[in-house]
Amino acid sequence: MSTHPTDFRSDRRRFLRLGAIFSGALTACKPTRPVEQAEPSSLGGPLSPYGERSPSEKVARLPGFTRNPEIGSSRTPLQDSYGILTPSSLHFERHHSGVPRIDPAAHRLLLHGMVDRPLMLTLEDIHRLPSVSRVHFVECAGNSGSEWGPKLAPDAQKAHGLASCSEWTGVPLSILLAEAGVRPGASWIVAEGADACHMQRSVPLKKAAGDALIAFAQNGEAIRPEQGYPLRLLVPGWEGNMNVKWLRRIKVVEQPYMTKDETSKYTDLMADGTARQFTFEMDAKSLITFPSGGHKLAGPGVYEITGLAWSGRGRIDRVEVSTDGAKTWQNASLDEPRLRMAFTRFRIPWKWDGQEASLQSRCTDETGYVQPSREALLEARGPNSQYHNNCITIWKIAADGGVRNV
Amino acid sequence: MSTHPTDFRSDRRRFLRLGAIFSGALTACKPTRPVEQAEPSSLGGPLSPYGERSPSEKVARLPGFTRNPEIGSSRTPLQDSYGILTPSSLHFERHHSGVPRIDPAAHRLLLHGMVDRPLMLTLEDIHRLPSVSRVHFVECAGNSGSEWGPKLAPDAQKAHGLASCSEWTGVPLSILLAEAGVRPGASWIVAEGADACHMQRSVPLKKAAGDALIAFAQNGEAIRPEQGYPLRLLVPGWEGNMNVKWLRRIKVVEQPYMTKDETSKYTDLMADGTARQFTFEMDAKSLITFPSGGHKLAGPGVYEITGLAWSGRGRIDRVEVSTDGAKTWQNASLDEPRLRMAFTRFRIPWKWDGQEASLQSRCTDETGYVQPSREALLEARGPNSQYHNNCITIWKIAADGGVRNV
Repeated sequence: MSTHPTDFRSDRRRFLRLGAIFSGALTACKPTRPVEQAEPSSLGGPLSPYGERSPSEKVARLPGFTRNPEIGSSRTPLQDSYGILTPSSLHFERHHSGVPRIDPAAHRLLLHGMVDRPLMLTLEDIHRLPSVSRVHFVECAGNSGSEWGPKLAPDAQKAHGLASCSEWTGVPLSILLAEAGVRPGASWIVAEGADACHMQRSVPLKKAAGDALIAFAQNGEAIRPEQGYPLRLLVPGWEGNMNVKWLRRIKVVEQPYMTKDETSKYTDLMADGTARQFTFEMDAKSLITFPSGGHKLAGPGVYEITGLAWSGRGRIDRVEVSTDGAKTWQNASLDEPRLRMAFTRFRIPWKWDGQEASLQSRCTDETGYVQPSREALLEARGPNSQYHNNCITIWKIAADGGVRNV
Repeated sequence: MSTHPTDFRSDRRRFLRLGAIFSGALTACKPTRPVEQAEPSSLGGPLSPYGERSPSEKVARLPGFTRNPEIGSSRTPLQDSYGILTPSSLHFERHHSGVPRIDPAAHRLLLHGMVDRPLMLTLEDIHRLPSVSRVHFVECAGNSGSEWGPKLAPDAQKAHGLASCSEWTGVPLSILLAEAGVRPGASWIVAEGADACHMQRSVPLKKAAGDALIAFAQNGEAIRPEQGYPLRLLVPGWEGNMNVKWLRRIKVVEQPYMTKDETSKYTDLMADGTARQFTFEMDAKSLITFPSGGHKLAGPGVYEITGLAWSGRGRIDRVEVSTDGAKTWQNASLDEPRLRMAFTRFRIPWKWDGQEASLQSRCTDETGYVQPSREALLEARGPNSQYHNNCITIWKIAADGGVRNV
């Protein structure tokens, strides 16, 4: 019985090093008596068909309404996240006309427009086709919008919680396009949702026939209602709104349709009054999730700083962390596997001396792109933007251990 | 905006090939009218703090009781699985005295025995230490027990559903052992749960100080009550029962303790009346999840055969599929990432001619170990075994499209 050291060798080196750093962190943990625990003595709860979390766990999405509870967004509690997956129950929401109740047996996907053979597909048709599973983040283009200022959001959830990461399973759209036969001259698709606002977005055909999926499952079960049940267009790495939920129609067309949701929204107003269009790819971003706004450190000593990084252009290659106001940076360790267009978890130990401190992370993706400071981003984009803020987040640790966004 | 073809090149080649195979599979999907769908026109449901699945989805674990609903097992519906992750709500259960209700604030982990500095840890202490996230399967040693015969279970859930796969996050046990200071002569640990039966298992120190984790999170949130909330010992690749749930105590010792759950259970009675002990690693196993027992094919034509493979000794390197009663075998494609001691999803297209057929899969892990046939396993292990059955499963397709286990 081997313990297969090869894969864990780098982990082990890391933990040996950490052992020295954390030595003494547990000095307060010595038992005063050998066993101080309650003695379990009675039968627990029964087996169950579909499990729930512990009633002691209260972590939640924070719905933020506009006028109606159907229209707005709720955010993933990134400050309480572990690993790279977001529980489906905590995946952020952004609805423009609520969550439609769809009967899966009655739902159809129409593929038409500039094709030789239009298709009308049932879920059964789609399930029968070859599929693939991949871990990808979805991030709203408006995520981190509060970081434009002037008032910064107080914690990771309110500032950056419009981003989540799941294992998605679906049929490559390329298969359906091949089956339908795309006509010469076509270069975009328009995807439409079955919500009351008929959400529509234009997607370049190259992406649609590339890595886009018609997703029907999320984290091992049918996609959740808030995420597009029973079908969602998944456009890996591109702004969340393009990942059209409750997908009912794909029309193959000649040019972008300039729908209301790609003109009145999801464009970036520059300093000179012109608008950037289109900005589909989500730029590389990272943030420290612990310690982060709202946390309170128990006292001086050693902590593990941990956080998430992701890029719409591929893999995260490096995350650096500074604990001294960007004077010096250290490489964090990255959990494997590091997947393209997926969250990557980073970790680095830190010894807090009990003084005020300033923590920040900066990521580099596989294209060499480096996450910018807030100053650099404002310089490039001007003061009018709402979308696509990926600047470095700075958490300030106060002498009492409190943490806030600065 | 590139579509990053590099990572998807192998996918794309596969799907181009599939395109030819599946051509015509969608001939029945042509729309008779351009839009036959219901028109969405009213606001949908509201934002919510913690989402639920669609009420149309009914997939469930099937609790199988012994005398009480607290004692027994429930099984993951593998025939309805997607990708490699099991939703936490559908992770199999095996309880020996029910699910204890544990107050996380009152819970303690005691580490004692042959150590220099015994530790009594709160959850807060454990959360503060360096942690790591890894995807691993957990499989009950009794999984697939019905395959010993004489009566085979009818479907993938009843036959093989005591196996599930999650992203686990926790503190390497090696860190706690280093902090406590293991004394010379120690070579095992005994792990104990906080359920009423005080589940205890002995684990070799080499494994405990190797890749074992004190897991506190599963699939991005606190570990579920049925999976050991708030702490579970995770012993990657080893039989499920050793992954002690509701972990309250680790004692460092000289030798295995021969507890009731490693002597009266979880040993393998051989043909000559002796018992194999210990058999910790789960042998490589694969099974086709679609089509599988209980499914019914709609009619002749092209289908994607898909399934899961895993090994307690590392990575899955190959899955072969036979559709002609083991006369010929073809390599299936394997979804990436292929992780060690984790589910791997395989897929291969198949054209059913409407005649009786026999489908089976056979996996090979990174050690070169090949999954055996039922005959080979019975030859090696004799007729008395209950545990550690990893033989090839054969699904028989009848001429009417029905599928059963033979």
